[in-house]
Amino acid sequence: MSNALEHTTGLHVVAQTPFLDDGTLDLPSIDTLSAFYYRHGAQGLTVLGVSGEAQKLTVDETIAVAARYVAAAEGHRIIAGVSHPNLATLVEVTAQVMAEGADAVMICPPSGIRTDEDLMRYFDAVFSRIGDVPTVLQDFPASSGVMMSVPALDRLLSAFPQIGVIKEEDFPSPIKITRMRAELSRPVRILTGNNGQFLVQEMERGADGPMAGFSYPEMLSGVYDLMTAGKRAEAHDLFNRYLPLLKHEAQGQWGIALRKEMMRRRGALTSNALRGPGPKLTEADLAELDFLVGRMDLPQG
Amino acid sequence: MSNALEHTTGLHVVAQTPFLDDGTLDLPSIDTLSAFYYRHGAQGLTVLGVSGEAQKLTVDETIAVAARYVAAAEGHRIIAGVSHPNLATLVEVTAQVMAEGADAVMICPPSGIRTDEDLMRYFDAVFSRIGDVPTVLQDFPASSGVMMSVPALDRLLSAFPQIGVIKEEDFPSPIKITRMRAELSRPVRILTGNNGQFLVQEMERGADGPMAGFSYPEMLSGVYDLMTAGKRAEAHDLFNRYLPLLKHEAQGQWGIALRKEMMRRRGALTSNALRGPGPKLTEADLAELDFLVGRMDLPQG
Amino acid sequence: MSNALEHTTGLHVVAQTPFLDDGTLDLPSIDTLSAFYYRHGAQGLTVLGVSGEAQKLTVDETIAVAARYVAAAEGHRIIAGVSHPNLATLVEVTAQVMAEGADAVMICPPSGIRTDEDLMRYFDAVFSRIGDVPTVLQDFPASSGVMMSVPALDRLLSAFPQIGVIKEEDFPSPIKITRMRAELSRPVRILTGNNGQFLVQEMERGADGPMAGFSYPEMLSGVYDLMTAGKRAEAHDLFNRYLPLLKHEAQGQWGIALRKEMMRRRGALTSNALRGPGPKLTEADLAELDFLVGRMDLPQG
Amino acid sequence: MSNALEHTTGLHVVAQTPFLDDGTLDLPSIDTLSAFYYRHGAQGLTVLGVSGEAQKLTVDETIAVAARYVAAAEGHRIIAGVSHPNLATLVEVTAQVMAEGADAVMICPPSGIRTDEDLMRYFDAVFSRIGDVPTVLQDFPASSGVMMSVPALDRLLSAFPQIGVIKEEDFPSPIKITRMRAELSRPVRILTGNNGQFLVQEMERGADGPMAGFSYPEMLSGVYDLMTAGKRAEAHDLFNRYLPLLKHEAQGQWGIALRKEMMRRRGALTSNALRGPGPKLTEADLAELDFLVGRMDLPQG
Repeated sequence: MSNALEHTTGLHVVAQTPFLDDGTLDLPSIDTLSAFYYRHGAQGLTVLGVSGEAQKLTVDETIAVAARYVAAAEGHRIIAGVSHPNLATLVEVTAQVMAEGADAVMICPPSGIRTDEDLMRYFDAVFSRIGDVPTVLQDFPASSGVMMSVPALDRLLSAFPQIGVIKEEDFPSPIKITRMRAELSRPVRILTGNNGQFLVQEMERGADGPMAGFSYPEMLSGVYDLMTAGKRAEAHDLFNRYLPLLKHEAQGQWGIALRKEMMRRRGALTSNALRGPGPKLTEADLAELDFLVGRMDLPQG
Repeated sequence: MSNALEHTTGLHVVAQTPFLDDGTLDLPSIDTLSAFYYRHGAQGLTVLGVSGEAQKLTVDETIAVAARYVAAAEGHRIIAGVSHPNLATLVEVTAQVMAEGADAVMICPPSGIRTDEDLMRYFDAVFSRIGDVPTVLQDFPASSGVMMSVPALDRLLSAFPQIGVIKEEDFPSPIKITRMRAELSRPVRILTGNNGQFLVQEMERGADGPMAGFSYPEMLSGVYDLMTAGKRAEAHDLFNRYLPLLKHEAQGQWGIALRKEMMRRRGALTSNALRGPGPKLTEADLAELDFLVGRMDLPQG
Repeated sequence: MSNALEHTTGLHVVAQTPFLDDGTLDLPSIDTLSAFYYRHGAQGLTVLGVSGEAQKLTVDETIAVAARYVAAAEGHRIIAGVSHPNLATLVEVTAQVMAEGADAVMICPPSGIRTDEDLMRYFDAVFSRIGDVPTVLQDFPASSGVMMSVPALDRLLSAFPQIGVIKEEDFPSPIKITRMRAELSRPVRILTGNNGQFLVQEMERGADGPMAGFSYPEMLSGVYDLMTAGKRAEAHDLFNRYLPLLKHEAQGQWGIALRKEMMRRRGALTSNALRGPGPKLTEADLAELDFLVGRMDLPQG
Repeated sequence: MSNALEHTTGLHVVAQTPFLDDGTLDLPSIDTLSAFYYRHGAQGLTVLGVSGEAQKLTVDETIAVAARYVAAAEGHRIIAGVSHPNLATLVEVTAQVMAEGADAVMICPPSGIRTDEDLMRYFDAVFSRIGDVPTVLQDFPASSGVMMSVPALDRLLSAFPQIGVIKEEDFPSPIKITRMRAELSRPVRILTGNNGQFLVQEMERGADGPMAGFSYPEMLSGVYDLMTAGKRAEAHDLFNRYLPLLKHEAQGQWGIALRKEMMRRRGALTSNALRGPGPKLTEADLAELDFLVGRMDLPQG
């Protein structure tokens, strides 16, 4: 059942959702964006995540975005974020994105879950309703407020074969991944988020690749390739070269705006707009970005 | 513009959403339920609130429930809860319930709002999108996590004429209502929630009536009538007579299940079912309810 | 080891801390207050709890309050609240209050505990430092933010024989107590808090008595006596008679001020003052209290 | 009054608290640690902050640490963190550290503050008790849970002349600093935290220097010197050179353990121990640190 996710390794970009300057959904840009991601090494995409501004879309828009990404997938894996405080909506959206051709869904437990027992009950309720849908479990306490210990993750894995991947972005992630690899009682793919900021250490400790967004996805896929080829020093060097920008983009919604601007400059997006309400980049922000990027030695285009 | 809510006084029941035993939405029971509420003194209903299990409905079900309550309104006011962490969904649902004929919406700010400035920005974003829709502002920190000080409420009232009613259920409510009546710089109706547990004191301090659920709504409307007629002692006595059950129903989701059971016994509902996941009443719960009710001197039927 | 708490049943009042009008600690009033509690049926006291304003005392004051309550105990059990976000302080205060002669300590886990594993680690750290001190475990999520499931409580009981009593004030408490009595794998005393508001149901479901504050402690001890004598109907009737005031006092810090005023009127305290910052009772508050109490049929003195 | 903080610019290191391997406080190491900080450009120290493990010390230990840092200050500014959920303890500790010779205190509002009005009341209560003590206001929502908008900060500055410095570590800090410099109505020093991760941008937007910890404080002081000398490009280059380690240390309590290890290697500390409970470094952690540092071009000693 969860075999659909068995080979989920390598870069899975957390994809942007393109908007026009007025906040309207820009579905056609999904095609150029997809091509950009795949050209730079993405094995698949996670669409409708937090940095994909999923929380600003209506249900109909959500389905439309997923469908367009599926249509542009060219054989790559499409994972659709369906986390929602309302279980009925989660179930409805899951059915629709899977019907549109998504390969899997990603679910983060909603805030309010406070004990291991609550956690088990929540996913019991989820999986009894959505059935055999391949699932990425997102472990992201800074966003959800829900902490999942390694023993609790293991209980979820034992109970729910649908979970094929854990998107790990607890903090600090390196020591948690070490514990997961030592203590989890069945195989699971671990892809790591947090904007890729700890990717090198995460790979060294057993992660299967990044599930993150960055305006230079070729760095993320490059680090993955070097690490899996045993070229650890080269991986560090590549990572460190991009680090100032990587960290700069890892600044919440404002960082996502900066990332969209960088992607616009690289031709992947036609507008850097976030859907409002949210930060808008100022002249000072853009000048600062120029200077920061100017001190780095980044590839053109 | 907000004149639609200018005369909002008296009992506004926070209405249940009826389900069949299998969790399916039971739209026909909305008609009998509405008749029950109006027969026992409701001037209007607030549908799709927390105790109306709104957070378990899909968007389509949400609209269907609102529409059915409107159809059964017989001239009473229908206020539809539209609070949602996703602003796009809030806007979409608001447009649809107003198109179906609701008189107003109720909005509680989403968790995550942490400063007065955030609060102003949030409602600025809301009202710039929904326009001139009469609005009940829900002040319910125990559920939302958002605290609104009296000065902050006053700033919202000054900025947004759409707000005609505040549903006050901060805690302790009596001293907050006293401050509101002393410090708010424009008239606003204050209806009070918290399952009606502090209704007598709230009325004495300036509230305009209850906006709450209880299986004996005639107590809530009766206390309102006595208080407005200056019969304070009689109001206390009526309130105290029902207090053991009122408090018993004020126990979260489990209390809502108890309330639905009481309403089933009174013929207002055909099933006591909550939509899952959630508590199911046990034999012990029912026996305990029987004994508690048996010690009280409640009207039949 | 935990035998010191084996027979902990009946009323244990959560004791006030008396202050003078200027906020100075009023140690002599602890003697009259103790006599009042014992005269009205307290088997023991829990001092330095939330409603004892422990969070407003310095460490030295904390020890002084505990010592004075011990000196006035006349053979009754004194349980000292030592919960503190700082483990070093918790350990230091525990040693000191036990040295002063307290019978046990009460500990509530600090906010920030989010998983069952965190919970076990926290109490492992606590008990490895404080050793064989009889302990009341406080389960009070509304104050601490820490939820403990019944399986998690059971793991704590299995690991730590020091825990002889659980102060249960999760919400709703009745269904949790039923689960505890069915699922906990070793005996433990369960005393219930939440200002006694759910005492009758809690006793019916297996609680061993109230651990709560109320200005008429004779109601709490009376309900306990009637319930243990099998006089359930009489217990309900006694409880219901006091309910309007019980509920009125259960309104946070303001409710504690109201309770102190009632206890001043009954001669148990010389001042109704809370240590600031905190609510001060107004003329309106006092008049409202008069009217509420006037509608009830309460004993004099 | 607040003149004591008027010239607070440049590096103020958030100082470690040294422990022996068994968790005992190691006061003598404070002397070598102080010398290390000053040798690498610190203008002053902030002692007893979160990364100084203040939350693990008893009150007596707290005073002892402050006193030792004062004794070793050699004319540098010593700011003592006194934040505490218990106001009485905050007041007591403030009086004692000032009596020991500290130059100022640092205060972060306690979790539970939820509105601008609460915030004003809290600091009103604080300053009415501590009086004319020069104060650093810490704006650190990720740790405290308290968000302070720029207008709220301005109201605090207007009301309380004691506040001479804001330690800014809201997120993202760059855009907040821009707003502060545009909107605050009186001068205030802004020093920035968050482990120095955003120092270059913060300086460009108006900060007066870093108030942060890092095992190479000479980078923090060096960036400050370059930025104030107008050598922006050189500042970026210096910052970027250290960034991999800076980011690696910015990983919560585990990061603090890594920092202590780096400082032990540099001769500033005799033990890398944190006081428990807390993370202990493993062989894997140390090997990983070696490799990371080995790819960088860091000065010896």
